[in-house]
Amino acid sequence: MPVSIPNHTGKVILGRLLRGSAVSFRAPQLNPTSASVAVVLRRFSASACSDTTSNKMSAPSEEVKAQITALKNEIGALKKDPSAADRMKELQAQLKELNLSLAGAGNGKKETKFTLKVPKGTKDYFGTDMAIREKIFNTITGVFKRHGAVTLDTPVFELKEILSGKYGEDSKLIYDLQDQGGELCSLRYDLTVPFARWLAMNNTVTNIKRYHIAKVYRRDQPAMNKGRMREFYQCDFDIAGQFDPMVPDAEVLRILVEVLTALDIGKFTIKLNHRKILDGMFETCGVPAEKIRTISSAVDKLDKMPWEDVKKEMVQEKGLDEAVADRIGEYVQLKGGRDLLERLQADEKLQANKSGAAGTADMALLMDYLEAFDILDNVSFDLSLARGLDYYTGVIYEAVTEASAPPAAKQGVKKPAPKKAQPTDPDADRSDDDTVGVGSVAAGGRYDELVGMFSNSKKGGIPCVGVSIGVERVFSIIKQRTEAASVRSNEVDVYVMAFGGGKDWDGFVKERMRVCKELWDAGIKAEFLYKAKPKPRPQFEAAEKSGVPLAIILGQEEYNNGQVRLKELGLKEESDEGALIQRGDLVAEVKKLLEKSA
Amino acid sequence: MPVSIPNHTGKVILGRLLRGSAVSFRAPQLNPTSASVAVVLRRFSASACSDTTSNKMSAPSEEVKAQITALKNEIGALKKDPSAADRMKELQAQLKELNLSLAGAGNGKKETKFTLKVPKGTKDYFGTDMAIREKIFNTITGVFKRHGAVTLDTPVFELKEILSGKYGEDSKLIYDLQDQGGELCSLRYDLTVPFARWLAMNNTVTNIKRYHIAKVYRRDQPAMNKGRMREFYQCDFDIAGQFDPMVPDAEVLRILVEVLTALDIGKFTIKLNHRKILDGMFETCGVPAEKIRTISSAVDKLDKMPWEDVKKEMVQEKGLDEAVADRIGEYVQLKGGRDLLERLQADEKLQANKSGAAGTADMALLMDYLEAFDILDNVSFDLSLARGLDYYTGVIYEAVTEASAPPAAKQGVKKPAPKKAQPTDPDADRSDDDTVGVGSVAAGGRYDELVGMFSNSKKGGIPCVGVSIGVERVFSIIKQRTEAASVRSNEVDVYVMAFGGGKDWDGFVKERMRVCKELWDAGIKAEFLYKAKPKPRPQFEAAEKSGVPLAIILGQEEYNNGQVRLKELGLKEESDEGALIQRGDLVAEVKKLLEKSA
Repeated sequence: MPVSIPNHTGKVILGRLLRGSAVSFRAPQLNPTSASVAVVLRRFSASACSDTTSNKMSAPSEEVKAQITALKNEIGALKKDPSAADRMKELQAQLKELNLSLAGAGNGKKETKFTLKVPKGTKDYFGTDMAIREKIFNTITGVFKRHGAVTLDTPVFELKEILSGKYGEDSKLIYDLQDQGGELCSLRYDLTVPFARWLAMNNTVTNIKRYHIAKVYRRDQPAMNKGRMREFYQCDFDIAGQFDPMVPDAEVLRILVEVLTALDIGKFTIKLNHRKILDGMFETCGVPAEKIRTISSAVDKLDKMPWEDVKKEMVQEKGLDEAVADRIGEYVQLKGGRDLLERLQADEKLQANKSGAAGTADMALLMDYLEAFDILDNVSFDLSLARGLDYYTGVIYEAVTEASAPPAAKQGVKKPAPKKAQPTDPDADRSDDDTVGVGSVAAGGRYDELVGMFSNSKKGGIPCVGVSIGVERVFSIIKQRTEAASVRSNEVDVYVMAFGGGKDWDGFVKERMRVCKELWDAGIKAEFLYKAKPKPRPQFEAAEKSGVPLAIILGQEEYNNGQVRLKELGLKEESDEGALIQRGDLVAEVKKLLEKSA
Repeated sequence: MPVSIPNHTGKVILGRLLRGSAVSFRAPQLNPTSASVAVVLRRFSASACSDTTSNKMSAPSEEVKAQITALKNEIGALKKDPSAADRMKELQAQLKELNLSLAGAGNGKKETKFTLKVPKGTKDYFGTDMAIREKIFNTITGVFKRHGAVTLDTPVFELKEILSGKYGEDSKLIYDLQDQGGELCSLRYDLTVPFARWLAMNNTVTNIKRYHIAKVYRRDQPAMNKGRMREFYQCDFDIAGQFDPMVPDAEVLRILVEVLTALDIGKFTIKLNHRKILDGMFETCGVPAEKIRTISSAVDKLDKMPWEDVKKEMVQEKGLDEAVADRIGEYVQLKGGRDLLERLQADEKLQANKSGAAGTADMALLMDYLEAFDILDNVSFDLSLARGLDYYTGVIYEAVTEASAPPAAKQGVKKPAPKKAQPTDPDADRSDDDTVGVGSVAAGGRYDELVGMFSNSKKGGIPCVGVSIGVERVFSIIKQRTEAASVRSNEVDVYVMAFGGGKDWDGFVKERMRVCKELWDAGIKAEFLYKAKPKPRPQFEAAEKSGVPLAIILGQEEYNNGQVRLKELGLKEESDEGALIQRGDLVAEVKKLLEKSA
């Protein structure tokens, strides 16, 4: 189908089936096997994918019974394998469904069933959830645009080769598209690799402030109630370009403060550190070069375990000299603002280290800029912030709220130690660790060498600094605090009603339409009940359900006298009949009231 | 990675590679084979998908040469098969790339290359394209919300079984996800089946006005310059619920008129017909019941071929009696408004037919309602409109513009007859036919029995009426008419500049930051150049590039005297230095100017 012909194409075959084909989804009397039997059966048949004939739909119950036996055998075999718990659950669900289908087919009485669900780890968003999400996106987008950002939209899938080799062990979480001939593709895993790919492809772009709010896909074990989804939104803002030191970095932080303030998610702090300071600190303390990354990832755990445990990990697991660990301990427990900076500036050893001196100078400049942007109070210079990712080359940050702290820390309960970190994937333990809090609501940093990896140009890639807002986390914070009743899923301002009765009264349907038309023409959001002769109650109920603030009421006699009532809904005085106004003044009067309440 | 920890996760391995791993993307001296050789090679290796080790990256050029030979052989074999043209092109492209890689690897001088592209049939959207698209979506969404619509967001993939069997021969165009264990899933093909699935899953929803603007996926042969993409947007609005006849139908048409008017795409007409009138007409004319659908699909071609050709198809190809065809001919060439309705109401044969009478009565009611909504002039009751899809049960419509007509009709040139329609897929020829115009910009109708096919409930599915706006088509119309220069990709109102010089001058970077901060706090979109000591020209150039209308200029001496300049950019008098205003009045003065120009 060409994209330019919008025609609900999807419905063509459903429609055809409907108009008397061999397949009936809802005719158990005619067909002893149910559609869902066939549907479930088809799950087990790899070749069924491309099969569009209908005879598969009428599998005899003998076949179903055979499948049930096979399924039971498979489940029996899996019982010995503890790692197969997930597959087991799936098989058991299938078994249940097959049994149900068979029962339905057997007695011929049950309604036929179609397996109705969304894929694991995904959900439909609707109603107030959708309204909250849209509000979050609008708020965030508004801030980004205030700073001159433009948006980029990339395809939901990329060539497999663009993604492969980028995510290490997590590569197994990438959704691949089936090889149906032609290119091999994968669903995007994040928005950063597509951005880097785009920058490399468009090397005439020398600088850009871009944002991208879009869904990404990870075939992880989902845990919906913990907000771990297989399809979820990311919201990235990045500044790419060769600029003077710390200027864009400061603006990214300013943007982060504006976003979190505008989202009104409560008190937050932005932890701030610099990779060069960390590197300088480790070198100064005497960490061997080859251990810097693994020691850094141990430091990164200070937000969920006490220093003693981190030190133990460094010394016992990672073989660091205890004296070195103690020197690190003196540093990483420091946090503050300009005071800490001054202390580091006075630290002769650190200043003698090239990396440490450069990082401290950057931080001094950054603090001046943050002060100019009036957000110095929102940040906490925190030497324990290491960020798990290797690619950062400069400033790093992470925004936390009350809810970000780990349950263990909040409850004062000593939780079991987290799983041992795998040195090759410093982030792995953070993801799977139950003792971790819900995590930061935003994080980011400077990464100057990432784009170069995609770039063909000799001058290398473009330096970048950016932040990723955890919109799913923000969503759950805001949703928790929002009373369902207080969020409207639609935005209608006026409900146009008719009151009347008697045989001659036609329900004023055309009159209501005309009134709506005038309101719409004036840009006013309006609705009416799709009933030709409505009673008052269902009209009020419909208006109330959507929380519509105003009603225009066409009373049978009043309207014929050129008058309508304008009533504010949801007021305490229910007996209030509204103000009687001239039909011709209707739009002006509505506007007046809406402006008043705005 | 948990969704609640936003951390640019994607970069972890890239970063690791960067910091000295075995793989180097940009080190031809060290590694005689290039990364792209390995990348291309991996395309041929099905098992490479899950391979995350790096040794695949250093394939010796002998292997590449073997691949080239194999590729040449495959191309040779395909030369005899004309249907393999597409595969051929792909192989040739791969061959070219392999040869290039080999050359690069051989001389050791060329930069290594990474295959940088987006998947076939997809594209990145950026800059003015993105700005135009956002404006279109905002316009459309604004209209939908004005009518009380709410939005629904469904996952980008559905269980394969939800989609399979819904699209007939077009099922081969569905993108399947690879079977990586667990459920089998497919990318959505349209937004209608997900909506029907959602309605069936949420059967407590008895009525809803929902819109959904989202991308859908079709593995069709892409033709980018004709706007045929594999990933493209659909924009659907539907009203589901049991209501009085024609009331929601009329509002959908009203919404369509509001959308097309608001989009300002030029003169448009909404062709309008009713499935029951068509059915009654065919029955009255004497079309045998089993031929009604195929004759209906012949009628549907009247927008791209003259009646004589359609008649020929009916009589010669479809075996219709010539007298019957002539009677149809009298009807289907009729179009008009109330006049045509009156003619049908006076048509005794049609009124004696149950379907014909019901359809005419519906149309009479609809016209009254369209008149109340003041859009009767926008529709053309057109008996030749049949719509290819079988599932419609009531009113059908299609919006056309000047650009919708087929090139043949516009040029008065007799084009070769379109490919023969396949009776089992009445839409097939419309998609592939070069003689068809760019098509309608919107289309839809009533489909009362679709949701029931997904529904388990005994009361059956919910009746629906809806419309799909062809946003890609609208986009191309608007883009054609838009001068690139007139669309701004960002929305910044004020560019904050500094003019000064001398050794002591620090470039006012913190002062510019403070001014920006004040503007942002006031909700004003503002930018400044990320240079510590900028010259005037690059600041003006940056402002001009984004079409920023105002500049605040901090002159070295003036600023120290508590004054700044506010200058309107893009004015003819380039010598204008702007108005000298007090530093403290800056925000107020900017607001004043912005309000004036708004």
